[in-house]
Amino acid sequence: MFVYNIDEDLSLKLINYQDAEAIFDLTNRSRNYLREWLPWIDYVTKLEDTMNYIKECLTGFAEQKTMITAIVFKREIIGVSGYNEINWSNRTAHIGYWLGEGYQGKGLVTKVVWALTDYAFRELRLNKVDIRAAEGNHKSRAIPERLGFVEEGSIRQAEWLYDHYVDHIVYGMLVDEWGEIITR
Amino acid sequence: MFVYNIDEDLSLKLINYQDAEAIFDLTNRSRNYLREWLPWIDYVTKLEDTMNYIKECLTGFAEQKTMITAIVFKREIIGVSGYNEINWSNRTAHIGYWLGEGYQGKGLVTKVVWALTDYAFRELRLNKVDIRAAEGNHKSRAIPERLGFVEEGSIRQAEWLYDHYVDHIVYGMLVDEWGEIITR
Amino acid sequence: MFVYNIDEDLSLKLINYQDAEAIFDLTNRSRNYLREWLPWIDYVTKLEDTMNYIKECLTGFAEQKTMITAIVFKREIIGVSGYNEINWSNRTAHIGYWLGEGYQGKGLVTKVVWALTDYAFRELRLNKVDIRAAEGNHKSRAIPERLGFVEEGSIRQAEWLYDHYVDHIVYGMLVDEWGEIITR
Amino acid sequence: MFVYNIDEDLSLKLINYQDAEAIFDLTNRSRNYLREWLPWIDYVTKLEDTMNYIKECLTGFAEQKTMITAIVFKREIIGVSGYNEINWSNRTAHIGYWLGEGYQGKGLVTKVVWALTDYAFRELRLNKVDIRAAEGNHKSRAIPERLGFVEEGSIRQAEWLYDHYVDHIVYGMLVDEWGEIITR
Amino acid sequence: MFVYNIDEDLSLKLINYQDAEAIFDLTNRSRNYLREWLPWIDYVTKLEDTMNYIKECLTGFAEQKTMITAIVFKREIIGVSGYNEINWSNRTAHIGYWLGEGYQGKGLVTKVVWALTDYAFRELRLNKVDIRAAEGNHKSRAIPERLGFVEEGSIRQAEWLYDHYVDHIVYGMLVDEWGEIITR
Amino acid sequence: MFVYNIDEDLSLKLINYQDAEAIFDLTNRSRNYLREWLPWIDYVTKLEDTMNYIKECLTGFAEQKTMITAIVFKREIIGVSGYNEINWSNRTAHIGYWLGEGYQGKGLVTKVVWALTDYAFRELRLNKVDIRAAEGNHKSRAIPERLGFVEEGSIRQAEWLYDHYVDHIVYGMLVDEWGEIITR
Repeated sequence: MFVYNIDEDLSLKLINYQDAEAIFDLTNRSRNYLREWLPWIDYVTKLEDTMNYIKECLTGFAEQKTMITAIVFKREIIGVSGYNEINWSNRTAHIGYWLGEGYQGKGLVTKVVWALTDYAFRELRLNKVDIRAAEGNHKSRAIPERLGFVEEGSIRQAEWLYDHYVDHIVYGMLVDEWGEIITR
Repeated sequence: MFVYNIDEDLSLKLINYQDAEAIFDLTNRSRNYLREWLPWIDYVTKLEDTMNYIKECLTGFAEQKTMITAIVFKREIIGVSGYNEINWSNRTAHIGYWLGEGYQGKGLVTKVVWALTDYAFRELRLNKVDIRAAEGNHKSRAIPERLGFVEEGSIRQAEWLYDHYVDHIVYGMLVDEWGEIITR
Repeated sequence: MFVYNIDEDLSLKLINYQDAEAIFDLTNRSRNYLREWLPWIDYVTKLEDTMNYIKECLTGFAEQKTMITAIVFKREIIGVSGYNEINWSNRTAHIGYWLGEGYQGKGLVTKVVWALTDYAFRELRLNKVDIRAAEGNHKSRAIPERLGFVEEGSIRQAEWLYDHYVDHIVYGMLVDEWGEIITR
Repeated sequence: MFVYNIDEDLSLKLINYQDAEAIFDLTNRSRNYLREWLPWIDYVTKLEDTMNYIKECLTGFAEQKTMITAIVFKREIIGVSGYNEINWSNRTAHIGYWLGEGYQGKGLVTKVVWALTDYAFRELRLNKVDIRAAEGNHKSRAIPERLGFVEEGSIRQAEWLYDHYVDHIVYGMLVDEWGEIITR
Repeated sequence: MFVYNIDEDLSLKLINYQDAEAIFDLTNRSRNYLREWLPWIDYVTKLEDTMNYIKECLTGFAEQKTMITAIVFKREIIGVSGYNEINWSNRTAHIGYWLGEGYQGKGLVTKVVWALTDYAFRELRLNKVDIRAAEGNHKSRAIPERLGFVEEGSIRQAEWLYDHYVDHIVYGMLVDEWGEIITR
Repeated sequence: MFVYNIDEDLSLKLINYQDAEAIFDLTNRSRNYLREWLPWIDYVTKLEDTMNYIKECLTGFAEQKTMITAIVFKREIIGVSGYNEINWSNRTAHIGYWLGEGYQGKGLVTKVVWALTDYAFRELRLNKVDIRAAEGNHKSRAIPERLGFVEEGSIRQAEWLYDHYVDHIVYGMLVDEWGEIITR
C-alpha cells in the first residue's frame, strides 16, 4: 500500500505480504539470471520462503535496523532495494538492490539508489551510505560509480557464492559530498 | 517515507519513528480536546510514550495484525488512522481514527475511512470492516453513517473512559455492500 | 484437581493436562454434532492438539487473560466453558461454552453460565459480561436469554464457519443488572 | 476459585491473583515467625512481590513444572503448599509448605501433605514424593514422620538462611509404600 | 579451544561445537557400556542431538547455571564432566561425569573431580559440592569416596533408567573439609 | 578457568563472570588512554556494565557468533581480544583487541592476533580473517601489518568517536596466504 514516488513510472513500496507472490514469481522467472551474483537464490524455492523473508524485512523495519522496499515500475514489481543494515551509532546504512531479468538498461536502479541515498541523508539524518558490489559485477558497480560514490576498498573473498568466493568493492558517499553533488 | 495518496492534499503514511515528534506534539496540543473520547491520552506524557506506541504499531504490522497510519494533510500530520485489528480467520478488520484539534469539519476522516475500507476489500480481500464509536461521540459516528455502514448494535458500557463507562455503537460494512455503494 | 462446585452434580474444573484425554474423546465423539457451530473442530484431530489447547489455556490463565474450565457432571467431563477474554481496562469478560453431544436439555450450561457470571462480578469485580452466539444457534442463544442478558446487537457475518459466514448476536449483562436479578 | 476440598474446613485452592493481598498480609503478619526457616521472607516486602510470585507459580503450573496452592481453613488463607518441582522423567515431586503464625498445632499441614501425596500417586501417577526440612525445624520434620515417610539422608549445609547454613533432612515416600499405608 | 590443564596428559576443555563429532563418536562407540547407568543414551542417536546438547551447555554457561567440559586425555576426548547445576543462593554445585568405554581404571575421573571440586571452592567461592551416583554403580561411587566426600543419604528410586528405578547415593564435600584435606 | 596458552607468559582465557572485576578495573585505570580509540568507554561506568558485557559475550559464544577472550599476561588480565563477529556463510571472522595502559610495546597483541588468526583457519576452518583499525591509530594498525595482512581499503568516516568520525583501514588475511606465511 505504502509508496514513495520517484518519478511518474517508478516508485518504492514498503515490502509487504501482499507482494509475496509477485516477488516470488519475479525471483522464479529470473532464477538463472540472478543466481550469478545473489547467494540466496537457491534457498528461495517456494512462496513460503518469500513470505518468511518479508516477515524478516518487516521485523527489521519495526526494530529500525533495515528498510526493504519493492521497486515498482509501471505498476509492476521489478526488483527489491533498500537499506540492508542501518547503524545508528555510526550513522551509516548499506544499500542493496536487485532487478529481475529484462528490466536492466533503463537507469531504474540508478534512480532508486539516488532516492534511497537522498532519503538517508535528508530524512534519517545519516552521515554515510555504503554500497558493496562483487568485483566482477560490472552492472552493479556502475550504479554507485555513476552517482559519484567513492571507491573505498576491495575486500577480498568477502562472499561465498555457491562454489567460489568473490571480492567486494566498497563504495561510500558522505553527507557532505552528497550536498555538493545535488547542488551542482 | 511510505505514502498512500488519497487526493492531492490528503494521504496516509505508514506510521514510523521519524514521525514520533510530530505525533507527540499533535497529541500534546489537542490533549484536552482528545481526552473526551480517547482513553489513552493520559498515558502519553512524553515523547518516549509515542516512540513505544510506534514500535507497537510496526510490530503489529510485521505480524499482519494491525496497520496504523499517520494522516497527512498538506504535508502536516493531523491525525492517526488504520486497522486496529485484522482477523484473518474471519476476514474482518476494525478501523479506528482520531484527528488533532482544529482539523475537523473538512471531511478528511471520511475520505480516510473511505480509502481504508476500499483497500481492505480490494487489496486485503477481507469480507467485512467494522467501526466502533462511543454513543455520544456524534462527530465520530457521522463517519460510518455518511459512508453507508450499517448500525449493527449498541454495546453497553463497552469502554472505561477515566471516570465513567460509555456505550459503543458498532457499524459494519460487508464487501458486497461496498461493491454496490461504489458502483452506484 | 481444582474444582468450583455449582451443585451436587455439576462443577467447573480448571482445565489441566490430566483432562486432555477426556476432552479429546468428548470432542471426537461429538465431532459431527459440534462442527455445526464450532470453527475449530476440524483442527483438533489428535490428542496432541488438545494438549496444545490446554497449554494455551493455562498460559492465558497465568497471564490473567482467560480462564477456561472443564464442565464436570457426575464426575464426567461433558464440555468446556470459561472466560475466553478478560479486558481489565474496561472490566469486561466474554463467556464461551460448548457441551458434548447428548448432554443438552438438562439446563447444565445455564447453571454454568450463571456461576461464571456471578463469579465475574463478585470475585473479579468486573463491570460487564458478554456472550456471543451465532444467530441460528438457538440452543446457544437460549442461555443468555434465560438468564436475563440484554440483546445488544447483531454483528453481521462475524465468523467464518468452514464454508459460510454466520452473524453473531451479542448479549450483555451489567453488574448492576445482575445485582437486581439475583436479589429478586 | 478452584478448590480441592480436604475436609469440611480445610481445602487447597490453586494460587491466583485474587489471593495476592491475603497471602501478602499473612506473610507480613508472620514475618518474624516465618523468617526463622524461610530464606525468601526478606525479599517479599510489598504486594507486588507476592503478585510476581503468583505469576511464577501459574507459569510453572502452565508448564507442568510446579503446582502451588493456598491452604484455606474456614474460608481464610492460612498458608501455602504444593509441589515445588515435578520431575516427569523420574516421576517424582517435591512437596513444600508453610503456615502463617498461629495456625500450628491443629494437624492442618499433616492433612494437606496427606492430600498432596495421595493426589501425586493417584492422579499424577508419580512414583515418589520427597520432602526436605531443615534439621532443626522440628515442627516441619514432624509432618513427614507422622505420615510414614522414610528418612533418606541428611544433606549438610544445603541451604543458606540469611547468615548461616542449615542441613536438610530428606524424607521420601514411594507409591508402593503409600499403597500399604492407606490400605492398612 | 579453552583448556584447563590438570596434568601433562589430562585436561578439561569447555565443551564446544568443534567437539561435537568427537563426543558423538565416543557416545556411539560406548553406547552399550554407557547405557547401564546413563538415562539419556537412547535419546542421542545422531550428531545433531550432540550439537543441541552442546548448545544447551553453552547457554547454561552463559547464564552461570552450569559448566560442562570435555575430558581430554592425550589430546583425545574421552568423556564429559562438569557442574550440572550451580545454585548461587545456597552456594552449591552438583558434579557429574562419564567416561567412554576403555578409559576406566587409570584414575582419570578422580583427577577430574579433584580439579572441579578445588576450582568450585577456590575460584567460584562455593560452600559445597555434591555428587550423586546410582547405588549399584560402584565405579562411579568410588570417585567421591576416594576423595573424602561424606555419604549423606540414600535417595530411594531417584532415577528412572529405561525400565527400572535406581537409588541415588548423595556425597557431599564442604569447603572447610576440603581445606583440611588439601593441607594434610 | 579455560585457557589457551600462547607462550609461557601469555594466554587467552574465555571471558567469564569471575573476570568482571579485573576487566572493569583495567578499563577504569586506562579510561583516558582507551577513550582515544574506543567508542564504548564512556558507557562502562560501573561493574554491572562489565557484567552485562560478559553476558553478551557468552551468549554470542553459545550462539557461535562471537568468541571473546581476556588476554592474560603473567597471571594478570591486561586486555581483551577475540572474534567480534563470525560469518559462517562466508567463512570470515573479524578480530578485535585492546590492551590496558602500560602493556604496550612488548609485542603481546601481535602474538594474540597471530594465535587467533591461526586458530580461525586451523580449527574453525574459516577462509578469511579481517581486522579494522582507525586510520590514525598507528599502534593498532601495526599489528596486522606486522603479521602480513593485506590492506584492502580505507572506509571513510566508518565510526563515530564521541565527537568526530574516524576512517577505518581494513586488513585481510586469506587462509592460503596464511599457509604460505607460516611455512616460510
